[in-house]
Amino acid sequence: MTLPKRSDESAMPETLPADSVGLVTPQTLSFDEPLSLDCGRALPRYELIIETYGQLNADRSNAVLICHALSGDHHAAGYHRMSDRKPGWWDSAIGPGKAVDTERFFVVCLNNLGGCKGSTGPTSLNPENGRVYGPDFPIITVRDWVKAQERLMRRLGIDQWAAVIGGSLGGMQVMQWAIDFPDNLRHAVVIAAAPKLSAQNIAFNEVARQAILSDPDFHDGRYHEHEVVPRRGLMLARMLGHITYLSDDAMRAKFGRELRAGKINFGFDVEFQVESYLRYQGTSFVDRFDANTYLLMTKALDYFDPAAEFDHDLSRAFEKTRAGFLVVSFSSDWRFSPERSREIVKALMDARRTVTYVDVDAHHGHDAFLVPIPYYMNAFAAYMRRIDTGGAG
Amino acid sequence: MTLPKRSDESAMPETLPADSVGLVTPQTLSFDEPLSLDCGRALPRYELIIETYGQLNADRSNAVLICHALSGDHHAAGYHRMSDRKPGWWDSAIGPGKAVDTERFFVVCLNNLGGCKGSTGPTSLNPENGRVYGPDFPIITVRDWVKAQERLMRRLGIDQWAAVIGGSLGGMQVMQWAIDFPDNLRHAVVIAAAPKLSAQNIAFNEVARQAILSDPDFHDGRYHEHEVVPRRGLMLARMLGHITYLSDDAMRAKFGRELRAGKINFGFDVEFQVESYLRYQGTSFVDRFDANTYLLMTKALDYFDPAAEFDHDLSRAFEKTRAGFLVVSFSSDWRFSPERSREIVKALMDARRTVTYVDVDAHHGHDAFLVPIPYYMNAFAAYMRRIDTGGAG
Repeated sequence: MTLPKRSDESAMPETLPADSVGLVTPQTLSFDEPLSLDCGRALPRYELIIETYGQLNADRSNAVLICHALSGDHHAAGYHRMSDRKPGWWDSAIGPGKAVDTERFFVVCLNNLGGCKGSTGPTSLNPENGRVYGPDFPIITVRDWVKAQERLMRRLGIDQWAAVIGGSLGGMQVMQWAIDFPDNLRHAVVIAAAPKLSAQNIAFNEVARQAILSDPDFHDGRYHEHEVVPRRGLMLARMLGHITYLSDDAMRAKFGRELRAGKINFGFDVEFQVESYLRYQGTSFVDRFDANTYLLMTKALDYFDPAAEFDHDLSRAFEKTRAGFLVVSFSSDWRFSPERSREIVKALMDARRTVTYVDVDAHHGHDAFLVPIPYYMNAFAAYMRRIDTGGAG
Repeated sequence: MTLPKRSDESAMPETLPADSVGLVTPQTLSFDEPLSLDCGRALPRYELIIETYGQLNADRSNAVLICHALSGDHHAAGYHRMSDRKPGWWDSAIGPGKAVDTERFFVVCLNNLGGCKGSTGPTSLNPENGRVYGPDFPIITVRDWVKAQERLMRRLGIDQWAAVIGGSLGGMQVMQWAIDFPDNLRHAVVIAAAPKLSAQNIAFNEVARQAILSDPDFHDGRYHEHEVVPRRGLMLARMLGHITYLSDDAMRAKFGRELRAGKINFGFDVEFQVESYLRYQGTSFVDRFDANTYLLMTKALDYFDPAAEFDHDLSRAFEKTRAGFLVVSFSSDWRFSPERSREIVKALMDARRTVTYVDVDAHHGHDAFLVPIPYYMNAFAAYMRRIDTGGAG
């Protein structure tokens, strides 16, 4: 494989931030060996789209895997074009001198199976009949993702990750990595995650799913064939998601009860700023995300429960892990609250594993994991600096 | 007016609970004087449907008004038929010997204007054109409701309520009563309420509204003319509402992660018990509620902000109130948290008003206000017992 090149910034009409990984190019890797899935079905073959940042060292000991959350993708850092308004989704944490320092680490990020940003998913063609998978794409679990990621690791010529890192649903993948492939990662960084969803978490996902499933344009998931998109349902799902990503305090700080036009208009158009924000988030999401993928992602969240096969004893699930853990939570996160992170920490301690726990005081809610809060970034960077990447790292 | 009669239980084939107000019959009152509204429009004439329990005493000093919340109505206690499976929505608090003791108090409850249970609202005929109001029904505010309730008070021959009582949106009406008609109530009981909605509260309402407004069967609110109902939208709105009525703990206690069929089925049918509960709540609501009314109720919530006309100083809003206040909050209520109730209490104290505050330790979330939790009911009853209803009370 070829690694993405840093751009020659001097040749560019505009400059990118000095601590950016610069211009990056995704790559698509094909896998022809069937992948059997938790649901009992198998994917005969599939593609994974990835981005990498930094250089793999000579003894291949400095590779880090970034696992994305519900609506994330492989584009975690840098820019695709000089004209991009925004960098990748976790650019605040990945780059030269940043927490995940690309001067030291070779960083790999992929779009997960079932995604809609380039890896095989519901919008891909089903090799069995040449038609878009749509609702026929199998429901994928966190364990399935990790299995596919392990194959990706082998393909990249890596035997062991220096660290596997993820926030939210990404953090669940990190835990599954440590459980399923204990010898293949040295560190596990679990940010703003939970050992399993609560009934309330599932309830929010269910309302989001019902919004999509009940949209007349959903057509049982075959909207591609009808040349429509279940816009309303996906918009509602995203609006609802956004409420759970922000804390009440963050919303208050951001919008308060500010009126868009300065006064009440006694109608159902946008009146409060927070309504305007949510509608924008909802409508813009529809243009860049697939409804079937959204459904799959929420199911992967609902199903995640690594303790289930260990008599619901999370510490037993962690018993065979060998990675050192960093667990991070955020004080105002009510989607996956600090209490949920402490369940993970307690189970790791009960299993006599090595764990560092950081609770960050932040008003941003669940979204805090994407925000470059100094205390958070400093703690994250300090942990990453302690990771040994070998002589060549 | 005739008061509803207690049934002769001995003549009935089945018996009702001894602490029930028994069989009750609603009454409809017509008002022909136009009611000018906050939105600038006026209702030329309107009807209010009410129920009353207990006897008005000779000096008319024992009347109590119950204000309902978002989806409530005039049927607060007792039964309409012996075959009713359930009594009125607040039967746990209203009846002989209960917190609102019908042996002492004459209790009045109405369906608010804009409702869909018998009072004039979007499902009523517009006298101007003889067609169903639908979306042409004006947006009503809490202040408008209180204005209509004051006329109802006069119609019933009452000069002053012994108490005005309400939970949630009902509690907001109580505050507005104390502010707008300080001489016409002696006590104000504000339960599980807030002085105004937070941005997060508004955000949840906005998603609910968008679910209804974007339903293709909504037809800009003229679904009656199309002989359809925006079922999907109203169902989603109610499902979402229910999440905010229950605490995370209550959901955990009630449903946990229990699977309906005992195992995961890798599909989008109901899998977890909480999904089954929400879908049931959503679909059953559609058969008994009107979408236009739901929209109006959420707007009344969003707009409520009595401090706004007092430079956003709530204590100034309360300065001219004369009622004694009981404020009640519930520890696990995250829709209107105890902190929000304490804002009310603090403003009342700053305004040197008389206030009793009770924070009830309860895991039920916002719904706790409808649950007969002993500590809550005892405190509520104790407060009500102290209310002087005159010699004939």
